[in-house]
Amino acid sequence: MCEIKYLNRTESPDFVKKLSETEINELCSEIREVLIDTVSQNGGHLASNLGVVELTVALHKTFDSPKDRIIWDVGHQIYTHKLLTGRFPEFSTLRKEDGLSGFSRPSESVHDVFFSGHSGTSVSSALGVASANAITGDGGFVVSVIGDGSFTGGMVYEAMNNAGRSNTKLIVILNENEMSISHNVGSLARYLAVIRSKPEYYRMKEETEKALNKIPVIGKRTVDNLSRLKTIAKETLYKSNLFEDLGFRYMGPVDGHDVNLLCEALNTAKLINMPVLLHICTTKGKGYDYAEREPGKFHGVPRFDIETGEQVSVGSSFSTVFGDFMCETARKDKNICAITAAMSIGTGLQGFEKEFGDRFFDVGIAEEHAVTFASGLSKQGLKPVVAIYSTFLQRAYDQIIHDGALQKLKMVLAIDRAGFVGEDGETHQGLFDVAFLNSVPDITVYSPSCFSELKADLTKALYSDKNVVAVRYPRGEENAFPKDFSFSHGDFDVYGDERADTAVITYGRISAFAAEAVNRLKNRGINAKLIKLNKIKPVPREAVDSVLGCRCVCFFEEGVRSAGVGEKTALMLLEKGFKGSFELTAVNDCFVSQASVTSQLKKYRLDAAGIEAVVCRLVQDNMGNQYVRQKKA
Amino acid sequence: MCEIKYLNRTESPDFVKKLSETEINELCSEIREVLIDTVSQNGGHLASNLGVVELTVALHKTFDSPKDRIIWDVGHQIYTHKLLTGRFPEFSTLRKEDGLSGFSRPSESVHDVFFSGHSGTSVSSALGVASANAITGDGGFVVSVIGDGSFTGGMVYEAMNNAGRSNTKLIVILNENEMSISHNVGSLARYLAVIRSKPEYYRMKEETEKALNKIPVIGKRTVDNLSRLKTIAKETLYKSNLFEDLGFRYMGPVDGHDVNLLCEALNTAKLINMPVLLHICTTKGKGYDYAEREPGKFHGVPRFDIETGEQVSVGSSFSTVFGDFMCETARKDKNICAITAAMSIGTGLQGFEKEFGDRFFDVGIAEEHAVTFASGLSKQGLKPVVAIYSTFLQRAYDQIIHDGALQKLKMVLAIDRAGFVGEDGETHQGLFDVAFLNSVPDITVYSPSCFSELKADLTKALYSDKNVVAVRYPRGEENAFPKDFSFSHGDFDVYGDERADTAVITYGRISAFAAEAVNRLKNRGINAKLIKLNKIKPVPREAVDSVLGCRCVCFFEEGVRSAGVGEKTALMLLEKGFKGSFELTAVNDCFVSQASVTSQLKKYRLDAAGIEAVVCRLVQDNMGNQYVRQKKA
Repeated sequence: MCEIKYLNRTESPDFVKKLSETEINELCSEIREVLIDTVSQNGGHLASNLGVVELTVALHKTFDSPKDRIIWDVGHQIYTHKLLTGRFPEFSTLRKEDGLSGFSRPSESVHDVFFSGHSGTSVSSALGVASANAITGDGGFVVSVIGDGSFTGGMVYEAMNNAGRSNTKLIVILNENEMSISHNVGSLARYLAVIRSKPEYYRMKEETEKALNKIPVIGKRTVDNLSRLKTIAKETLYKSNLFEDLGFRYMGPVDGHDVNLLCEALNTAKLINMPVLLHICTTKGKGYDYAEREPGKFHGVPRFDIETGEQVSVGSSFSTVFGDFMCETARKDKNICAITAAMSIGTGLQGFEKEFGDRFFDVGIAEEHAVTFASGLSKQGLKPVVAIYSTFLQRAYDQIIHDGALQKLKMVLAIDRAGFVGEDGETHQGLFDVAFLNSVPDITVYSPSCFSELKADLTKALYSDKNVVAVRYPRGEENAFPKDFSFSHGDFDVYGDERADTAVITYGRISAFAAEAVNRLKNRGINAKLIKLNKIKPVPREAVDSVLGCRCVCFFEEGVRSAGVGEKTALMLLEKGFKGSFELTAVNDCFVSQASVTSQLKKYRLDAAGIEAVVCRLVQDNMGNQYVRQKKA
Repeated sequence: MCEIKYLNRTESPDFVKKLSETEINELCSEIREVLIDTVSQNGGHLASNLGVVELTVALHKTFDSPKDRIIWDVGHQIYTHKLLTGRFPEFSTLRKEDGLSGFSRPSESVHDVFFSGHSGTSVSSALGVASANAITGDGGFVVSVIGDGSFTGGMVYEAMNNAGRSNTKLIVILNENEMSISHNVGSLARYLAVIRSKPEYYRMKEETEKALNKIPVIGKRTVDNLSRLKTIAKETLYKSNLFEDLGFRYMGPVDGHDVNLLCEALNTAKLINMPVLLHICTTKGKGYDYAEREPGKFHGVPRFDIETGEQVSVGSSFSTVFGDFMCETARKDKNICAITAAMSIGTGLQGFEKEFGDRFFDVGIAEEHAVTFASGLSKQGLKPVVAIYSTFLQRAYDQIIHDGALQKLKMVLAIDRAGFVGEDGETHQGLFDVAFLNSVPDITVYSPSCFSELKADLTKALYSDKNVVAVRYPRGEENAFPKDFSFSHGDFDVYGDERADTAVITYGRISAFAAEAVNRLKNRGINAKLIKLNKIKPVPREAVDSVLGCRCVCFFEEGVRSAGVGEKTALMLLEKGFKGSFELTAVNDCFVSQASVTSQLKKYRLDAAGIEAVVCRLVQDNMGNQYVRQKKA
């Protein structure tokens, strides 16, 4: 780490206001070194953060947080903001358990206005803050900082449409870096490129207007035409911009790496009594060669070597297995299509994108559109597979009901990052998908526990099951099962003594831990069996029947307790007259903060030791202590 | 009803292709008479349907459905389409049980491409169809018909952004009628008004370009400026439109009541090998004076008198009680704000809108933005109440989690039309809100059963409870409870003999039926008690404890069975060692089609007779026949 000259003076972000131009430059360099150094060790978001160093400095030079509200969209580009608002001393704890969040988190600092992690919310919440200020007469400026990637999502448009009409004072900074997480998509991206390639187009307004007034007018017909033309040209010069059409005053584009220019623009924006859109251009990964060249690779990174840029290598994951499956299947079946919402790399579809470009659709950060678009493909006989992270699929709940299930058309939802996701924290956990899918009529949900099951489930989803089928799988690698575990690839598997009167029921990746727990329990004198569900909607009746005679049934669920499979199983047992003891272990009515997945599983008693302990206690409570051998020391 | 001359020849919509101009006019008049006549008897959507008579005729003159796909957004303006596609003979069954749907329903006709009922989906699904056609090489033209109201929602923007880039052949007809359901909001509405007021602005492109080429050029500086100006002016003439910025070819505005003009425009659109946006202007309620004058009142109507325009009067409803409560409370508390998503009248907020305009926000059909915007208001200390129908709130599931619950800010969700909604059918039932809210951590949900409880719950939500609080209530009037039922306005009430060993648990409006059922059961020798929940999240532990010793517990839920309160109660009972019999009656894994609410409640055994029968059977199964007296003949 470099010697720290500035960042140990950041109790208040106001300190940047007093720095000279040279000092500002030194500060920016220092920040970049800290960013690269910390992310190389902790993993995290790099390229986006390197891109907004100057912008963040300029914002704190121009505005007075927290009186002025600076609201970061998505929040993964907030690291410099954290460094400038008193959090340098803890910055080495970034993304670690009990450490600083990698996103905006109000409990951490008054300078973090909202929790954020999902894209496209900042203009809505900023408009809420600004509207409240207008009502109460309190408050300062309100600024939303949002990338062009987020602008592919519909929420931003809804908010812009409302802001533009309201005439509320609000500054939206559109940070164009030509990248969302994969690469930018849609007409807006092309449109911004046009604007950017012709900055004079927007800067020359005044001059042009003067010129218009000097056009000599010759001949009657020309007079008429030209007079109309002048009116049109004047109007279009002032009204020709998409953002101005939405009621914003457009400013830009401005070089997002020039602090002076940025401050000048921001100070001008402060003077305008209506919504302003300030368009700035930045380079993702700025100042770190490897990240500038491959910003996608350095978006969200594991630990990496600063000198070589090499990232800690990861082996096969559920995502890569999914991606390979998609390619193999699409080679044989020309009806397979893949849809992603700006997560081509994250979902493992980059190979499919290359090989089957005409059947690949990256719709931008537009999960709602993704699902409804898929129903259109399906209507015409294609087989759309929509690959979206669990947490982001929450956006498409209504579309899954209204444009998916209700249509009774074939559609596969490939739900990645289901379950704990680790260091990304509260906003990103994939803990809700099972619960919200449970409520949707007429759909099938699989939760494979290993790679082979993932492939088998996808095959069933594409070729056997009807209507909407969801296949959900976790981030990362598969867990090792005991050697004697055999996968039927059916709806559920039983492991251990089928006649055991203690049963563990679970699904997904923690099944491996449950199997281990069953073996450990055996060593402690508890004869338990594992019912490993593969299909979780509908819950296989035979699986429930197989535990009806048990004295103790423990259900473990890597997801929210409320509305999950455990609850449903409890109901099925109760309605069938089950008279034993039942306990459900799951994430109970709370948000899960950052930590490693291992630590999260441990905390919620979903690892082998946790499962063992829960079962032991229930058995003891029911059958007495003598029944359970003490754990070996 | 008028004498029918044309509509009995509609086996194929192609018949309109052969009609003369005079015949077309007569056809349109005939359609209007049938529309007014039928809706006056059955209730339904009137104003929007009267507005698109000519458009629908023009579409079927120009396109060949079902080879060409005509996709109606929201679908409530589809009546003429139904009449022209062979459904005149059944048209009198519109919106009745087992009759024609008031929306698009594929099971009814090959000419209905998708189920639709929620707004803003048509461009996404149309783009899916068009993209599939591009892949397979099959298929005809794809047309989406969408109102300017739907254009306030973000999904349309997501779809436009994708369509514009894709260059897929697709025709989007923007039907501007200056109304969404309440009235149109946002910058886009203003923008469309500008376009509409200057049609020549778009029609004169060619002429102006010629003129530009003739501008004489004098003097060096002028030369430079003018040369730049000419480039700009040319570009802006072709590129100056919001829709063209999004990659569409813009056409319009066209008079939407002139079949010839419409056909001409549609035939031109067919020739353009890229996405086209055809902007047409129509008058809501066209041809029926009362509806033209008050299109909002004639959007969705109950039965009415054709001569006087008077609608069947409705008394107090949960919506009007909510609206009155909001006004009363806002008079005393200046922090109360109300937000609606284009449903000011439907949610009973029109009075609030008038009296507290500065604290009232109609955000358009933008439920996602509504919730996140509310979090912004709340952050600054205001008390936002977001009033949205249950079925539309599905759109904001992610925002309720990410921008509501996670932020731990005060926000009230007033969920109208919760439960069965009757004649609007599959797409509109409010059967999912309890299930999806169940999964959200740290929120409170109330389900009042009568007006006084609604007010009490709203008061608690605003002044006692923390964080996000949802208060959900049904469409229409309150049900009558037995005279001896006393409301504590607490978390739950017990009715009947507290020591009874048979218990009925339920919540919401059907509680009145359950109370009646308890009385009927008494007459049949079954001593049952009713546990009427008011707070349903978290489920009050004492309520569950109060039935722990019962032999039979029957739970009734006007909502989906999976992920509901019944399941959760089953789990709580099981974990507490309940050994009796339990049965949950709810809507099980299906969509509910149109019928009266009374009929729907009967079908799903949620009326007094249904509840009585279910309890009788469970008691008989458990305690033997002799225990239950036969129903009196």
